[in-house]
Amino acid sequence: MTTYHPPYFGADYYPEDWPVEELAKDAAKMKACGMNVARIAEFAWSKMEPRDGEFEFAWLHRVVDSLAAHGIATILGTPTATPPVWLGRKFPDIFKELPSGDREQHGGRRHCCSNNSHYRRYSARIVERMAKEFANDQNVIGWQIDNEIYAWGGCFCPICQEKFHRRLEAKFGTVEAMNRAWNLGVFSQEYSDFDEVPTPRNAWVNPHHRQEWLLFQQDAHVEFVTMQADILHKYVHVPVGTDIMPFSGINYPDLHRKLDIVMFNHYHEPETLWSCCFWFDMLRALKPDVPFWNTETATCWNGSVSIDQTVKPEGYCTANSWLPLALGGEANLYWLWRTHWGGHELMHGAVLDASGRPMHIYDEVCQIGRDFQRAAAFLNNTKVQTAIALHFTSLSWNMFLAQQIVPKMPYFDTVCGHFYKPLLAECRRPDVIEAEHDLANYKLLITPMVMSLEDKDLQKRIKAWVKNGGVWIVGPLTDVRNHDGARFQDRPLGMLEDFAGVTWNYSLPDRDGTVHANWNDGTPITLEKWVELYEADGDTLAAVDAAPHGALVGHSILQRKKVGKGVVYVLGALMDMASMQKLYTMALTDAKLPHGGGDGLSFAVAERSGNGLNGVVLTEFAGKGGHYNLTFEAKDLLTGKTLKPGTVSVAPYQVRVLQATSSKKSNGTKTAKR
Amino acid sequence: MTTYHPPYFGADYYPEDWPVEELAKDAAKMKACGMNVARIAEFAWSKMEPRDGEFEFAWLHRVVDSLAAHGIATILGTPTATPPVWLGRKFPDIFKELPSGDREQHGGRRHCCSNNSHYRRYSARIVERMAKEFANDQNVIGWQIDNEIYAWGGCFCPICQEKFHRRLEAKFGTVEAMNRAWNLGVFSQEYSDFDEVPTPRNAWVNPHHRQEWLLFQQDAHVEFVTMQADILHKYVHVPVGTDIMPFSGINYPDLHRKLDIVMFNHYHEPETLWSCCFWFDMLRALKPDVPFWNTETATCWNGSVSIDQTVKPEGYCTANSWLPLALGGEANLYWLWRTHWGGHELMHGAVLDASGRPMHIYDEVCQIGRDFQRAAAFLNNTKVQTAIALHFTSLSWNMFLAQQIVPKMPYFDTVCGHFYKPLLAECRRPDVIEAEHDLANYKLLITPMVMSLEDKDLQKRIKAWVKNGGVWIVGPLTDVRNHDGARFQDRPLGMLEDFAGVTWNYSLPDRDGTVHANWNDGTPITLEKWVELYEADGDTLAAVDAAPHGALVGHSILQRKKVGKGVVYVLGALMDMASMQKLYTMALTDAKLPHGGGDGLSFAVAERSGNGLNGVVLTEFAGKGGHYNLTFEAKDLLTGKTLKPGTVSVAPYQVRVLQATSSKKSNGTKTAKR
Amino acid sequence: MTTYHPPYFGADYYPEDWPVEELAKDAAKMKACGMNVARIAEFAWSKMEPRDGEFEFAWLHRVVDSLAAHGIATILGTPTATPPVWLGRKFPDIFKELPSGDREQHGGRRHCCSNNSHYRRYSARIVERMAKEFANDQNVIGWQIDNEIYAWGGCFCPICQEKFHRRLEAKFGTVEAMNRAWNLGVFSQEYSDFDEVPTPRNAWVNPHHRQEWLLFQQDAHVEFVTMQADILHKYVHVPVGTDIMPFSGINYPDLHRKLDIVMFNHYHEPETLWSCCFWFDMLRALKPDVPFWNTETATCWNGSVSIDQTVKPEGYCTANSWLPLALGGEANLYWLWRTHWGGHELMHGAVLDASGRPMHIYDEVCQIGRDFQRAAAFLNNTKVQTAIALHFTSLSWNMFLAQQIVPKMPYFDTVCGHFYKPLLAECRRPDVIEAEHDLANYKLLITPMVMSLEDKDLQKRIKAWVKNGGVWIVGPLTDVRNHDGARFQDRPLGMLEDFAGVTWNYSLPDRDGTVHANWNDGTPITLEKWVELYEADGDTLAAVDAAPHGALVGHSILQRKKVGKGVVYVLGALMDMASMQKLYTMALTDAKLPHGGGDGLSFAVAERSGNGLNGVVLTEFAGKGGHYNLTFEAKDLLTGKTLKPGTVSVAPYQVRVLQATSSKKSNGTKTAKR
Repeated sequence: MTTYHPPYFGADYYPEDWPVEELAKDAAKMKACGMNVARIAEFAWSKMEPRDGEFEFAWLHRVVDSLAAHGIATILGTPTATPPVWLGRKFPDIFKELPSGDREQHGGRRHCCSNNSHYRRYSARIVERMAKEFANDQNVIGWQIDNEIYAWGGCFCPICQEKFHRRLEAKFGTVEAMNRAWNLGVFSQEYSDFDEVPTPRNAWVNPHHRQEWLLFQQDAHVEFVTMQADILHKYVHVPVGTDIMPFSGINYPDLHRKLDIVMFNHYHEPETLWSCCFWFDMLRALKPDVPFWNTETATCWNGSVSIDQTVKPEGYCTANSWLPLALGGEANLYWLWRTHWGGHELMHGAVLDASGRPMHIYDEVCQIGRDFQRAAAFLNNTKVQTAIALHFTSLSWNMFLAQQIVPKMPYFDTVCGHFYKPLLAECRRPDVIEAEHDLANYKLLITPMVMSLEDKDLQKRIKAWVKNGGVWIVGPLTDVRNHDGARFQDRPLGMLEDFAGVTWNYSLPDRDGTVHANWNDGTPITLEKWVELYEADGDTLAAVDAAPHGALVGHSILQRKKVGKGVVYVLGALMDMASMQKLYTMALTDAKLPHGGGDGLSFAVAERSGNGLNGVVLTEFAGKGGHYNLTFEAKDLLTGKTLKPGTVSVAPYQVRVLQATSSKKSNGTKTAKR
Repeated sequence: MTTYHPPYFGADYYPEDWPVEELAKDAAKMKACGMNVARIAEFAWSKMEPRDGEFEFAWLHRVVDSLAAHGIATILGTPTATPPVWLGRKFPDIFKELPSGDREQHGGRRHCCSNNSHYRRYSARIVERMAKEFANDQNVIGWQIDNEIYAWGGCFCPICQEKFHRRLEAKFGTVEAMNRAWNLGVFSQEYSDFDEVPTPRNAWVNPHHRQEWLLFQQDAHVEFVTMQADILHKYVHVPVGTDIMPFSGINYPDLHRKLDIVMFNHYHEPETLWSCCFWFDMLRALKPDVPFWNTETATCWNGSVSIDQTVKPEGYCTANSWLPLALGGEANLYWLWRTHWGGHELMHGAVLDASGRPMHIYDEVCQIGRDFQRAAAFLNNTKVQTAIALHFTSLSWNMFLAQQIVPKMPYFDTVCGHFYKPLLAECRRPDVIEAEHDLANYKLLITPMVMSLEDKDLQKRIKAWVKNGGVWIVGPLTDVRNHDGARFQDRPLGMLEDFAGVTWNYSLPDRDGTVHANWNDGTPITLEKWVELYEADGDTLAAVDAAPHGALVGHSILQRKKVGKGVVYVLGALMDMASMQKLYTMALTDAKLPHGGGDGLSFAVAERSGNGLNGVVLTEFAGKGGHYNLTFEAKDLLTGKTLKPGTVSVAPYQVRVLQATSSKKSNGTKTAKR
Repeated sequence: MTTYHPPYFGADYYPEDWPVEELAKDAAKMKACGMNVARIAEFAWSKMEPRDGEFEFAWLHRVVDSLAAHGIATILGTPTATPPVWLGRKFPDIFKELPSGDREQHGGRRHCCSNNSHYRRYSARIVERMAKEFANDQNVIGWQIDNEIYAWGGCFCPICQEKFHRRLEAKFGTVEAMNRAWNLGVFSQEYSDFDEVPTPRNAWVNPHHRQEWLLFQQDAHVEFVTMQADILHKYVHVPVGTDIMPFSGINYPDLHRKLDIVMFNHYHEPETLWSCCFWFDMLRALKPDVPFWNTETATCWNGSVSIDQTVKPEGYCTANSWLPLALGGEANLYWLWRTHWGGHELMHGAVLDASGRPMHIYDEVCQIGRDFQRAAAFLNNTKVQTAIALHFTSLSWNMFLAQQIVPKMPYFDTVCGHFYKPLLAECRRPDVIEAEHDLANYKLLITPMVMSLEDKDLQKRIKAWVKNGGVWIVGPLTDVRNHDGARFQDRPLGMLEDFAGVTWNYSLPDRDGTVHANWNDGTPITLEKWVELYEADGDTLAAVDAAPHGALVGHSILQRKKVGKGVVYVLGALMDMASMQKLYTMALTDAKLPHGGGDGLSFAVAERSGNGLNGVVLTEFAGKGGHYNLTFEAKDLLTGKTLKPGTVSVAPYQVRVLQATSSKKSNGTKTAKR
């Protein structure tokens, strides 16, 4: 019997597309291409249960067996994103209700209401049947629940409305408490009964109401996934996950509470590939002990009946395929193996064309598979190490959806562009963490745009961590709301004034960037969109130099203050890249951490160690090349060459897996398990 | 007992936002800031009538009394824009029906149908209760009905449909008459019964049908406001108004027929502050004997959950706050005193932050309050004087909504930008008047884009006024439709050909400005969007010089002709600024009126006189400064300095209140009461 | 009794607009303007049948008679686009159902469901009554069915849904066959009953499903028109047509199966007037033996209640009016004679203003009428001749609507801009043909973007035609789908690999044009949007020179191969204009056809012959002038001057009707009847 080992390399496969005689041919071609895993079945409910209660799994066993016969392991998807036509015909209310009152229709996917009891019951049944059927199949190495489950727009059906009312009741106890919490006295919005609260369709919706509705819709999906996980865990003994995507403010820790592994689908383009690292740094921190799986990415382009993309350069697929492995994952799968010959998404890129011929990317894909094997031992025995954390929370994301503050400052883009990217530039790799993450292992913590520090007791936990020696960069737009998204009535900030020794003066929108600041040394700082001004009792590092209104001049936008054994930097603005790098340099020094080391905006630097091995993986993602300052002698596992310490070059889209030749010559990081 | 005197200076206040103990603190802070009035209660229906028929006013008395204790008068708003949740639950049909058939939901404001009888009945009851409750409260100095009531999109409910049918019946008598008036023979649109006429939802709507629908929806609001005014007048003895906004084609004279005072809310930005003067010139003319109240404007920015604005320069708030007083009002109030701590509009600028701390604009606001007092006697004793009128009518506005003629030529923007602005440039101040206004006091009348002169018998009244000596600038797009918005069948213009001695040749759209004209002296004129060409029997002042089609060349676009004791200028195009100023110079000379005097596009010039006082108020609105040619010796009431006749400078956003030192040295205007 | 002869010159007239006494005046003015035909009655159902079953035709006879009395023939329109209000009141389901479930409303036009049985029955009745009434009226020279009938968005009513289900049943027989054909196993879309298939409203719609729905909606209109044609043919003996427009993928041959004549409405602007030739070349080929009628175009501008146009230059109306006659038609009518005085479309340009006065275009219109008469004998006796055909098919159009492939590559624009325009540049005039057209008379055939060659047995028919000597330019995006729009499962192309000796390698989107190709001689070719790469066994004429991915370099994008007596060019890309002209030059040489001869992008070259006459009509459409290489001595019928062979100039918007002075000096084309 075959056993399967990471790194996993493979693709999605739709046996339902093809005549049965194609199956063995496709499996053999996967093998020839260096693959060892295929993802199947995620949308195949109608094949497994063609009629209500009539189950057919023989075909699916045949697929798993045939793949295994060629050395290909299987990841099985539960098919709940696409119920068969008979289910919607029997229970028309399974379909999502749009704000207009119309229902979605059969024919797409993820078009059902996760709160609907019929949909839940039939989903549970098909999942349990699959689980029983394949519980002991040694060739199934993992389970994926549903597919890309997110609350796009949400569902407005009566069941959702009723559940929302009961959620409000459970949260607030009395309607008066809700009226107070949401300040509903204004505009005579006060309710006399939870059942009166409308779903947000045709109204000017209160931001706290909208926030709760967004969280409610997301939690419905968490419940739906958790229900499936509980069923699967009764039968199967391999990892269970659900393939998430890089958007939507869903609470990832909640979603993964009952899951064993993190799965991720992404379709980044060359211009934004650097930002993909943000997500891998988040995935890795979600389950630090289990390497994540990159379950979907494109070989060359994505499209449905239309493709709006340019031709990706040679090497792009290589870098894109390597990034998840370099940054903490152990699998990379493409969507899809062979393009559909008809129906939905028939223009999506793949490894093979529908006709079975190789696409232009084929040779590059084969090379990636070979290189994964060359680095397998190093990758499997080491982990990415870091002592830096960047806060990025579901509650913040949803608060910014409910109250935008200023236009063109979306939560993810702003945190990633203004706070994460300057860290990359310094060749630093943070864990991207949620509010609930333990801070003990970190020395530097960055907390921008976390509107409420009432989330998971952050106020208290951060205070203790700083006093114990942590270096904290906080702001802007942090600690400015309570957990419902309301302002404090008696103070402008929750805990920051007392704790960090600042007095808040003014906050203001600045669409056109008219407020100018300087560092103490006179170096100018470019500000954007939103400014918070303070009177500081620590060291004012930067202050407003010029502004349209004189009342604004002279106030601090950045101070540094020692608090206990730690240091707090209070930042009141979105600063330019150079200024952020300057701030990070100061803070890293405070935290006794290194910085710099190369062209951090050209390649991802992943320092890895474990089981006596040390090294660094460099993945060029910008297509322009760069230099890295290697601090130890290393062997490049892909070329076999030995490199002396010093400057090494990285070509466009090149991947360098540099394993230290002596385990003593560590890169300054511990081998500690996390 | 306190009595209150203008100028009124204050802000909106939401006691329902705050714990009761904040009330006295806020009132004291208002006083400290120089304020003497607060606007309250406009959305507080649920506080006044928390359950159907149960009224609670004690809290509101406490607010009025507490404000009064600090010398702050109250303007009370009726809360009908935001009915409590129990009313919508009892009568779900109070909510507006959208074109889609959906109803609006509880939670916003102005989301009810003004024609709905339940909504009207309950509105009447709460208004009557409030009126009785505060009828004799000496600290209430005015009543505001509802808030910013406009027919955004209108309501499509069955009650509206039925009322619309009865309106058509009352207007046309027989359906055949309507069929003829709207030319419904074309497209087989003819109706056999008024009840067949659809509300304009999913159809290609006839422009006359649309025009009548727009007027109908607006009249519903006029009825709703008038109903409240009638109730209030039974009990209260202070001025009653409703706070209007600078958009929507509602008929302002109709709206104010039963109201005592004009109230106005506006949120202009620096780029368009000059155009705000247009509205003040309109408000002043609406009720010439009663100074209007500017009930809302922003101190620094407006926003709901998002702010899309830049930082306003120092002084902007000063100019913005002074303009209404300079141009004929006696009150300026901000929205709002203290930002909401939660719920709707929590990002709007104010005087104080939610935490109770001053916003950056605070000191400037205090200075404005002090300066209002310095100029109080002059402002209270004098009025703005003018002999120029510019037509701007509700019917025209609605006709242009129903038939746009050409794109990007909206009625307000075009009249304000092409006809009002060149008058400003000449330092002239017109009254902006409706069709029904008496013309007797004016010497120069400008009537552009008044599609139908059948409105309020204008054809006949203007003829008489011109023959008696008036100078009339007419056109373009004036006198081209009957009152229903249809063309005349037997002539291109209603009365203008005979009266002004022109023969209409052609009218044509000219999106790209390809038709060129010259003054008689050869100076070129830039034309835009729409051209009307004539054969003239008066003096042709300007004619087409070049055009894509030869048939257009040589025709007149501007003629001057003496008619009786008066003069008529027939203008066939939108001309450039310099050409309009040249035309105005000619016409002002004909009318024996002065012109020029300074940088009219930098500051508003308000010549004021009355009760033996003379002077001029200059309010810089452009942020660039300028010079004014002072014709008399004056004292600047804000600086206390005396200025000799001659050129005086006005700094960016500066306000100069220049009172003539001798009442004999008049500025050439009469002290006559209007 | 008057008889009427082409060329027909006239306008639409709406007697229902005007008092009865205007009728004779308008007729007399038409006559004075050189007109001989008017189009009336198309929307006048309510005048003909004011109440259900009560018919009134006296007024319409009076109109026809009065026009005839002034020598004006009549084209009668059936009024089915605008049913009277009583019909919609009796049967509210006649109105189209929108995707939202709302119905359209009375008041517009073409707002009814062509599948609705009530609408069909009452339409049939009014058409039959009209037909009987005017069957023997010698002054009615043609019938127009309905007006501009197209499936804008389609109808989603229950009747349409039911008919769609029956259509699917008839097409596929079993639901399993449909499931297979549309690959519905993917996404669990499989149906168990045809009645389960939704109308495509709120769903992610399968492209094959969408394609069938589009064809179904269009066929409903074909049925509706055909029903009327069958009725009319029972009574009338003059040509029956329906006025089509230059958009929508309707199947024109199907639409005209039972019609006698092709009618066409268009409103091109100066920038796109050249592309209007495409349509005339299509119309001519639709019914080669019957000259088409251009039933509508604007004299100066089109508009409804708004006009978004610039002033058209002098001469534009001349060129625009002549093009249909030059290219194979025999009528040009304007919409409309006299602008409406009220109601819909009252801002549309015309010949007379509503007041009855001439518009600025009037003299130019009269001149056009006179010139038509000067050329009448030549036009009536000759036909346009060509041996070139360009494929443009309804099925292709609908496939590109259902699967766009890449953005901004719409079917019509791409075929017209990339394939038709370079032919114009070579002074060549193709027939634009449908899949069903016989190929026998052509020597050169161009077949771009015909996704499926399974349409009308094209695969087989083209093979035979090429082997018999035809020169075929094929691709890109041709032969890549079966008739349902699905890919072939076992090969990338249907027939092209074997037949043309190519092996398909890769196809790819290239939004940014990053793939570069060269001709064999090194001349660079600019490619756009979509590229297909081949290995060729014929002569590779052009191949990829550089690309972002090395795997793409070196493959053929254009090959030439002899097949039987013919030649096949396989083209894999959208090339720049110069490259397309180079390819056409090669192919025309292969086909032994001439090319070149002048500035083909300035004027339309129509070589005409017949009945012993030869000549060419040049119509300048670009407003810039140009030169033409005249190969025979000719008389310019409009100027009366004789021109020697050699270069002749054509002024902006000039029309030259050049009749060969000797029938022997033919222009190389046959006089053959088509």
